[in-house]
Amino acid sequence: MQVPLSKELLANLKDWIAEGKDTAIHDVLQGVHPADIAELINELRPDEAVYIYRCLDDERAAEVMLELDDDIRKKLLSSLTSREIAEDLIENYDSDDAADLISDLPEQKQEEVIALLEDEEQASDIIDLMTYAEGTAGALMGKELVRVNQKWTVAQAIREMRRQAEYLDTIYTIYVVGDKEELLGTLSMKTMIFGSASMRTTVRELFKESKVRSVNVNTPAEEVVRVMNKYDLVVIPVVNDAGALLGRITLDDVVDVMQEEASKDYQLASGISENVESSDSVIALTRARLPWILIGMAGGMSSAYIIGVFDITENPQMAIFMPLIAATGGNVGVQSAALVVRSLANQSALDETVMQKLTKEFSVGMVNALICSAVIMLVSQLFHFDLALSITASLALFSVIIFASITGTFIPLTLNRFGIDPALATGPFITTTNDIMGLIIYFSVGHYFLNHLDLLPTTIF
Amino acid sequence: MQVPLSKELLANLKDWIAEGKDTAIHDVLQGVHPADIAELINELRPDEAVYIYRCLDDERAAEVMLELDDDIRKKLLSSLTSREIAEDLIENYDSDDAADLISDLPEQKQEEVIALLEDEEQASDIIDLMTYAEGTAGALMGKELVRVNQKWTVAQAIREMRRQAEYLDTIYTIYVVGDKEELLGTLSMKTMIFGSASMRTTVRELFKESKVRSVNVNTPAEEVVRVMNKYDLVVIPVVNDAGALLGRITLDDVVDVMQEEASKDYQLASGISENVESSDSVIALTRARLPWILIGMAGGMSSAYIIGVFDITENPQMAIFMPLIAATGGNVGVQSAALVVRSLANQSALDETVMQKLTKEFSVGMVNALICSAVIMLVSQLFHFDLALSITASLALFSVIIFASITGTFIPLTLNRFGIDPALATGPFITTTNDIMGLIIYFSVGHYFLNHLDLLPTTIF
Repeated sequence: MQVPLSKELLANLKDWIAEGKDTAIHDVLQGVHPADIAELINELRPDEAVYIYRCLDDERAAEVMLELDDDIRKKLLSSLTSREIAEDLIENYDSDDAADLISDLPEQKQEEVIALLEDEEQASDIIDLMTYAEGTAGALMGKELVRVNQKWTVAQAIREMRRQAEYLDTIYTIYVVGDKEELLGTLSMKTMIFGSASMRTTVRELFKESKVRSVNVNTPAEEVVRVMNKYDLVVIPVVNDAGALLGRITLDDVVDVMQEEASKDYQLASGISENVESSDSVIALTRARLPWILIGMAGGMSSAYIIGVFDITENPQMAIFMPLIAATGGNVGVQSAALVVRSLANQSALDETVMQKLTKEFSVGMVNALICSAVIMLVSQLFHFDLALSITASLALFSVIIFASITGTFIPLTLNRFGIDPALATGPFITTTNDIMGLIIYFSVGHYFLNHLDLLPTTIF
Repeated sequence: MQVPLSKELLANLKDWIAEGKDTAIHDVLQGVHPADIAELINELRPDEAVYIYRCLDDERAAEVMLELDDDIRKKLLSSLTSREIAEDLIENYDSDDAADLISDLPEQKQEEVIALLEDEEQASDIIDLMTYAEGTAGALMGKELVRVNQKWTVAQAIREMRRQAEYLDTIYTIYVVGDKEELLGTLSMKTMIFGSASMRTTVRELFKESKVRSVNVNTPAEEVVRVMNKYDLVVIPVVNDAGALLGRITLDDVVDVMQEEASKDYQLASGISENVESSDSVIALTRARLPWILIGMAGGMSSAYIIGVFDITENPQMAIFMPLIAATGGNVGVQSAALVVRSLANQSALDETVMQKLTKEFSVGMVNALICSAVIMLVSQLFHFDLALSITASLALFSVIIFASITGTFIPLTLNRFGIDPALATGPFITTTNDIMGLIIYFSVGHYFLNHLDLLPTTIF
């Protein structure tokens, strides 16, 4: 029976923990999906989490562990012995999940756990996987796959597949390799099992001739995402520099990377440090948000300084258009930066050059600037603002839009060139920069016009 | 041989089109992946696109068609006869792709194409799929799957699977159904083929007892994404209200939905209308951006009005902290709104209630507000600003941060309640609102303090 998630269930569990009703906990959780159990545990205090975890059957506990939030998982792991981790968890895992989990442990414990693994092949797979840098194809891949040598007959291959498949949940593709383990091609399960080939046909005669799309083990994770996405792949083989088959990456692993990236970009654009959710604690949320607010405030203080330098008390009416100039500069800058960030995430060989990008952004900026400054000129005259002030606002707005378009494009491109995440440029950082530059432009223009255009009529209409 | 994408290839293709070198085009594109061909075609003029398309072999052309940008695809489709669409395209497609493509055609042509399909089962599958509303599980699903009746023996089942699998690229899972097509469970290919069961065992004895996770055909696409993601599913069966198996949705279809959602949220947060890329034309980019800039400007004009009402010339030094107040209000509001949007996208039964959310946001706002107003008080006094002005800025900042936290949380929740995309609240919309409210708060506080606190010393330090 399937038990759905509910607040009542959570409340019941808390009561049962307090009363020590282990059997009740065990029994009700039998019907809850491991991902849902993880969601429940994420809501509990650490001691309650450990209690629930210990009520689960080993196999379920192992699945739940993989689904937990990072911080809870670390706490839970620290309450388990190396032997428990090795025997109850790792031995239930695929190599990639196992390597990820072990990487979360303190170094000393890592070694202990690996030494305790009974399956030597698994141990060596894990050690191998742990050597790859985070964020590369190597760190994403799993070792579990079905491989057949091109010289084998179908009968031999099926026998081997049966043996290899014993540890696999899903067989995505059958990889055909040569004597040096070099990846030669793929075979579908369908061809192999349901095909009309005789049992004595060799694999060589069956498999697709065309080159298989694979990624090198050092390829960055983002590139793996891009390739799998673009070519609609459910699984992609990973090879080393010599072309030997090392492992495979499946779409569901890549989906996680994709989502992390998208939410990282989104959070940076919103001025939030990575990895918080609205369900986190007040302290965690404050820690993720306050720095960005302070950056914005530093910008605000710089603006205050500039307003002081240009002595607003001399031309106090200039204050009227300050918010308009600042807001527009900010909006335009964020738009430009966001477009660059998106295009960098989907890079292609056919992309425009940096010069082409800047030229186009300049054109778009020019169109927006012309329209907006015309609008502001018209509206401010309709509302009978001083003509010199209207001209100032209009000209400043024009320059600010062009300026914000160019910097909004240029800054993320530059950050990216230096290996810094370009999405940094989309948040409070760019609005702050544009606020400050907008004011400088506005006051510079105003300084000139308000002091030199006294001869103008005060209003057109 | 695999030909990589390059600007030279694009230039060569253009030359060859001009010179009518069909064979050269055909031959070089034989080695280019259909997704890459589509990327090349996306860069061409419509007449060039049609030309290239007609140089491709039927099967490649069909694959390329699926990968093209929407606007180019529509143009290309309008240059094809109904017979060409039916025979060269649709008959090569899975039911879900076929239904999507036909939906893109004018109504008259839709009927013609369907009437021309030779495979009646495919035709009825397509007609069936076209009845489901866009954005539901029904519109996402494909009809291609392997189903076996629980009463069949393994031998019977394998025979049937062989027949059904003829039209499938990948067999994800084998679905077990009862006599009324009701979904009862799943079987892995492994159990069926490599399992130790005798050929006379019935399916009923083999398949997993536990309830299969499925979605109803009317489930919204976002919910399908959430479920597949949470439970790490590569494929999910789709059933009708009576529980009968209708089709299946695969992870790669869901990945597309996921990415569309993420990029829509991102674009709204950046103040860009949906669906533009930096490679689009200047006109398309301006159309997507200008409205948001104008919204921001309308806000700026409202701010100008407020500054006029409160008569800045009376207390011109108040202009100094205007940018700081506005920027901070904007930043805080965007943070709050973005957190709500994210949490709405990952809704769960354990979520906090609206009241809990607002209370927590109020707490976070309070902490941020206390720290920020203390910082501003200190800094402005260190820089020897007028004490009354410092107090004004500090108090106004405090209120603005609280206000922006609450509205930033409340507005997207309200939009969502009324079925409007909450992400609308993250862009220029909320920064503009907070700019205006920030100024009103600032001036109201200032009006009181600057007129009543003349007795204070002008500075603390």
